[in-house]
Amino acid sequence: MLPFARVAIIGMGLIGSSLARAIRETMPTVRLTVSDGDPAVRARVVALDLADDVTENAGAAVVDAELVVLAVPVGAMAAIAAEIAGELAPGAIVSDVGSVKARVLADLGAALPGVEIVPGHPVAGTEKSGPDAGFASLFQDRWCILTPAVAGPASDRVAAFWTRLGARVELMDAAHHDRVLAVTSHLPHLIAYSIVGTASDLESVTRSEVIKYSAGGFRDFTRIAASDPVMWRDVFLNNKDAVLETLGRFTEDLVALQRAIRWGEGDTLEALFTRTRAIRRSIIDEGQDTEEPDFGRKH
Amino acid sequence: MLPFARVAIIGMGLIGSSLARAIRETMPTVRLTVSDGDPAVRARVVALDLADDVTENAGAAVVDAELVVLAVPVGAMAAIAAEIAGELAPGAIVSDVGSVKARVLADLGAALPGVEIVPGHPVAGTEKSGPDAGFASLFQDRWCILTPAVAGPASDRVAAFWTRLGARVELMDAAHHDRVLAVTSHLPHLIAYSIVGTASDLESVTRSEVIKYSAGGFRDFTRIAASDPVMWRDVFLNNKDAVLETLGRFTEDLVALQRAIRWGEGDTLEALFTRTRAIRRSIIDEGQDTEEPDFGRKH
Repeated sequence: MLPFARVAIIGMGLIGSSLARAIRETMPTVRLTVSDGDPAVRARVVALDLADDVTENAGAAVVDAELVVLAVPVGAMAAIAAEIAGELAPGAIVSDVGSVKARVLADLGAALPGVEIVPGHPVAGTEKSGPDAGFASLFQDRWCILTPAVAGPASDRVAAFWTRLGARVELMDAAHHDRVLAVTSHLPHLIAYSIVGTASDLESVTRSEVIKYSAGGFRDFTRIAASDPVMWRDVFLNNKDAVLETLGRFTEDLVALQRAIRWGEGDTLEALFTRTRAIRRSIIDEGQDTEEPDFGRKH
Repeated sequence: MLPFARVAIIGMGLIGSSLARAIRETMPTVRLTVSDGDPAVRARVVALDLADDVTENAGAAVVDAELVVLAVPVGAMAAIAAEIAGELAPGAIVSDVGSVKARVLADLGAALPGVEIVPGHPVAGTEKSGPDAGFASLFQDRWCILTPAVAGPASDRVAAFWTRLGARVELMDAAHHDRVLAVTSHLPHLIAYSIVGTASDLESVTRSEVIKYSAGGFRDFTRIAASDPVMWRDVFLNNKDAVLETLGRFTEDLVALQRAIRWGEGDTLEALFTRTRAIRRSIIDEGQDTEEPDFGRKH
């Protein structure tokens, strides 16, 4: 028994197109309609045969869908919701894949009164963008967090849908989601963007030297700082409070480290560096990263 | 013609043991003597058959070596140099693999008057430590920076040695090396250690949540923050000025980003995030990282 027989995806970037591929692979009888505002993206979706129908207009994609998944930047959710509001079939459930949840829950609720809304966030992705970058196994064994206002039959169906796609599902309060992800995702991205910017702006060290000797650690940061600019702009603008709070904590800790270096407090440094090694161990034990050195990069 | 027929390595951690393996593979007739102060490490070196001789005492390892490579934390270089000072063969060249060069050049020069000193830094490594973590191809196509006080026949021979090991060699002024690596390696490590510490210290988000949802970006930082604590303590203590200078720049830029988020300046964010993406591209084009999404992690 399929959780949904007719699904619409709005936005066919990395996540939307991975979702389409995963649906095709795990639930091949689902009738899949997708939409994207960009003609180049639509052409690739057709060429890659990722869906049964491809529409220019979001409203046209959702007319008979039982589940509509918005896979657009968080800042575009309200406009897309307004576009589809008059076209949704009775009983349709609207979900999304955005990295910020309180704002999305509020925006979708305001634009779609009376509609069942089950915001979702698959904690998965890569630094690449666009329909060619997607792949079916992206959500395999990754967490998908659902943040409905109230848990019930609608969130149960969406949970069953993600489980079929290979993900592990967790329900969470939207505001708590935003605090957790501020730490595990938003702050790391902000820091990575910032340090890559800093490194490319120095006078005493040339940019070509930064690139040439990046294997010393810097290149890891550039991967994250290669993520989609608009998606991440919207994350920071729409999870402002949690990001600023977490950033404040980080800056405090960094200043303390700076002081320890200035005063030659080797024990403080070594104690922290030993503690952080244990956290890496936990992440590997939890199956959240590979144990292979250097992420398994080829040598 | 081998650059050196008899080589001694002091310290058989990740780098020392990789060096031993690479010598065995590329220059199998080299007579290789190694030393490590830790009996457990020596036992593993014997079991793995990484060298012709294994000594407890650093002095005993160097007696007939043409090249001595110190592969110990930067803070331990002076003591090891003092230990070998009376044992070096006439004409022996002393090198190292430390991530800080001005301090090492000064320390070795003071401890070994009249000895040819060619400090070196292979810009390669993983987050793992110890003799079991090493592998022969670690230096393949990676840069090795040499920072002799004066270039000449000694640095030519050390350059030829690293070239045989598969590395690309560059000569650089020691102080400039320390400024470049402060940006490309030391600051990234400091930031990673700091953010991993911050994330594990929050009250509103549990440590198990941080680990569970780390795939959103955080897990990348934990890899770097799993690097050897003593090695990195010594890097920060011995490259203090360049690290503090670079850290000051970074903090300035981060505060500017913080302000952009607070005031909702989306264009500022998007412009930076677009610029950083281009830097990632350059690093891949230069062969300094894999193009595969997510570093080629398995999905």
